[in-house]
Amino acid sequence: MRDFLPEDVRRRAHVIGIIARVYERYGFEPLETPAVENLETLLGKYGDEGNQLIFKILKRGEHEATGQADLALRYDLTVPLARVIAHHNAKLPRFFKRYQIQPVWRADRPARGRFREFYQCDVDALGSTSPAVEAELCAAVADALLELGFSDFVIRLNHRQLLASILTASGVPAPLHGPALVAIDKLDKIGPDGVLGELAERGVEEAARGAVLAAFRSTGHDPAEELDRLSNLLASSAVGDAAGEAAVTNLRQITALAAGTRADGRIRIDAALARGLSYYTGAIMEIAVPDLAGSLGGGGRYDNLVGMFLGQDVPACGFSLGLERILVVMGERNMFPPALARSAADVMVAVFDSADLRHAIALAGLLRSEGLRVLLYPDADKIGKQIKYADSRAVPFVALLGGNEIAAGTVTVKDLKAQTQNTYDQTAAAAAIREALKDRG
Amino acid sequence: MRDFLPEDVRRRAHVIGIIARVYERYGFEPLETPAVENLETLLGKYGDEGNQLIFKILKRGEHEATGQADLALRYDLTVPLARVIAHHNAKLPRFFKRYQIQPVWRADRPARGRFREFYQCDVDALGSTSPAVEAELCAAVADALLELGFSDFVIRLNHRQLLASILTASGVPAPLHGPALVAIDKLDKIGPDGVLGELAERGVEEAARGAVLAAFRSTGHDPAEELDRLSNLLASSAVGDAAGEAAVTNLRQITALAAGTRADGRIRIDAALARGLSYYTGAIMEIAVPDLAGSLGGGGRYDNLVGMFLGQDVPACGFSLGLERILVVMGERNMFPPALARSAADVMVAVFDSADLRHAIALAGLLRSEGLRVLLYPDADKIGKQIKYADSRAVPFVALLGGNEIAAGTVTVKDLKAQTQNTYDQTAAAAAIREALKDRG
Repeated sequence: MRDFLPEDVRRRAHVIGIIARVYERYGFEPLETPAVENLETLLGKYGDEGNQLIFKILKRGEHEATGQADLALRYDLTVPLARVIAHHNAKLPRFFKRYQIQPVWRADRPARGRFREFYQCDVDALGSTSPAVEAELCAAVADALLELGFSDFVIRLNHRQLLASILTASGVPAPLHGPALVAIDKLDKIGPDGVLGELAERGVEEAARGAVLAAFRSTGHDPAEELDRLSNLLASSAVGDAAGEAAVTNLRQITALAAGTRADGRIRIDAALARGLSYYTGAIMEIAVPDLAGSLGGGGRYDNLVGMFLGQDVPACGFSLGLERILVVMGERNMFPPALARSAADVMVAVFDSADLRHAIALAGLLRSEGLRVLLYPDADKIGKQIKYADSRAVPFVALLGGNEIAAGTVTVKDLKAQTQNTYDQTAAAAAIREALKDRG
Repeated sequence: MRDFLPEDVRRRAHVIGIIARVYERYGFEPLETPAVENLETLLGKYGDEGNQLIFKILKRGEHEATGQADLALRYDLTVPLARVIAHHNAKLPRFFKRYQIQPVWRADRPARGRFREFYQCDVDALGSTSPAVEAELCAAVADALLELGFSDFVIRLNHRQLLASILTASGVPAPLHGPALVAIDKLDKIGPDGVLGELAERGVEEAARGAVLAAFRSTGHDPAEELDRLSNLLASSAVGDAAGEAAVTNLRQITALAAGTRADGRIRIDAALARGLSYYTGAIMEIAVPDLAGSLGGGGRYDNLVGMFLGQDVPACGFSLGLERILVVMGERNMFPPALARSAADVMVAVFDSADLRHAIALAGLLRSEGLRVLLYPDADKIGKQIKYADSRAVPFVALLGGNEIAAGTVTVKDLKAQTQNTYDQTAAAAAIREALKDRG
């Protein structure tokens, strides 16, 4: 887990601010949940591997010695949302659209853009099964990435039922769906022959292997064409499959609706996309950029999760952007505005004599009251040393307040870059500094 | 621990935004640290009671079964800062001024304004022993509270050494300083006779009891007068005490400097102020308002804490505002601007027919591209039901897009409050809605 020094925090706040502003435009409202959940709320929601990665908190007081845990750190923002929906159900609107930008914790092995404490930026819409929900989620996420300056991302789109239907149509029995997908997932790394070998190892029959490989190799970028191909594939299989065809129809609707949004041209049908989490029930999505092996974010429909807490199902669909990965890629691509690397202050007030500190602090207050960010040098060190300090901190101006200035109610403002200085009435200094700051952008 | 629904989050963001903006004007830079620290970093820093209240995290993997903890949740923002200073020392400036607004966790019994997860808003200045540091901290905190709308707070100011010197001068031996302060602290609750009784119970000799009580009863609001009284008291005692007199001088300097800042008129010398934490070494401060028994925040100088991590002392002084208590008082006093209770969206796009969803979603995108916050009703329910929904969510406008409008490229905008409607070109609708929103503030 990492400390964030001032420039890191500014970069994070910049990205979070843009994402939150875009989400608000889509009618999502902010929600925050505690870092700590009851352990039983989290257990069993993320699969076996997920259970292993949950940070567990010891019982307090006399029970501490038992070594048992009753609480845990938040593992994602989706399960807490489901708990919130169940708990606050009466207070929430029928269609609840919330965003949530908070850290989560996983006891995972750290890697590039993967940390044990990391922020997720989630949007979820509850209460409707309309394909407009998925389309709007894709639109919101695309809009946020575009505003951040990304221009080369795609949204991979698939459907859990389509995935299952294609595997079945290819001759893979249900118990082998999982192992087959693990093999398919390696296509980029080990090539078609490698995948055929892995499928064999995992017990997929020979006739099915080629069919699986062919089915999952996307033939192009156009979503409508790819959906036609998959639809034909399902229709031509021996297994009649209305559920698979319904999934194709659902993806057709989503892509058609998304074409009228900021997600236009970004969506690729990827029949091999599986997504790890077990709670998805319908469409699933994932964001890819060329220079990152993992995804920038992902999501999908999970119509049954809220029911595990509420006792009655509430349709739901969500999308999560990974803040840390966005920051990694933006850093590598130099996508941050230069203004974020700003100095700690607009001006530093120097101190000639500790007996004059009260004049210096009053001047600092005057400049602050006009909105400037002001450092007060705290000690009466040599003026050269003080100016050097301001320079080392990239503070552009130093306010000098010697005996003459104090007597006259003036201040001498030194421009460290231009190496010029001017004397102003103290009440006029803030305006002069603001003007000079504006000139240098 | 609590969930924060949209209006809660907006109130919290409002307060945090103001505090951060004020802190930035004082030259403090943002820092963030992980929620989780090594357990050994925290143990022994907060006294015995503090140790008990730390949430401890189980070791992972094969060590989990041992029931041992190696990590813990952040207990305050000061100890993590000291660790950061030691760890990132080479990267940080000689005078490091940071603010940090993050949650901390304590396994405490919840009460009014006291929660197990709560936010602190800290400012700390490292690297200088100048009294200007304390004065600027008081100024920054006062400025933040004034901007939030508080007008009746005072800053209680004391000094750890003065506290000790007065107790000694009153005839209380060092081992009884702690117990005597606990008794003094109850003066408001149990009155002078009650305190005298408690002092007796705690083993303070008869001659000392009256002296202690007299010494700690402030005689007025003027800091200079109160400091004169305390100085005379020290001078007249049998114990010569240069350290106590130095503390008085330090408080004289701090109050004189603060008089030229936004803290002017707010400071009260309170010789009985003790502050719980053990790491303070000099001046200590606490914010009080009439309608809250506890404090809105507090702080002080801690010149030795960084040394516990770095191996060499770095002078430091900090102030922490308690977000939850500020929110409680602001809520009770109705201090939040009405705009915070805003609806989820400026306009809702209704859907006449699911076949027309793509027109509705495209219109929503158009309105969003002009900065409006837009809800898209996801299903083709009856229009009356949709309008009722918008009304229930306090969304002021509904955009109606029937067959005629779609054919003509127009949209009918219904004003739910005025019960009027107008038809606009779709490209002109956003400007019309913005204008109408401006009119109603």
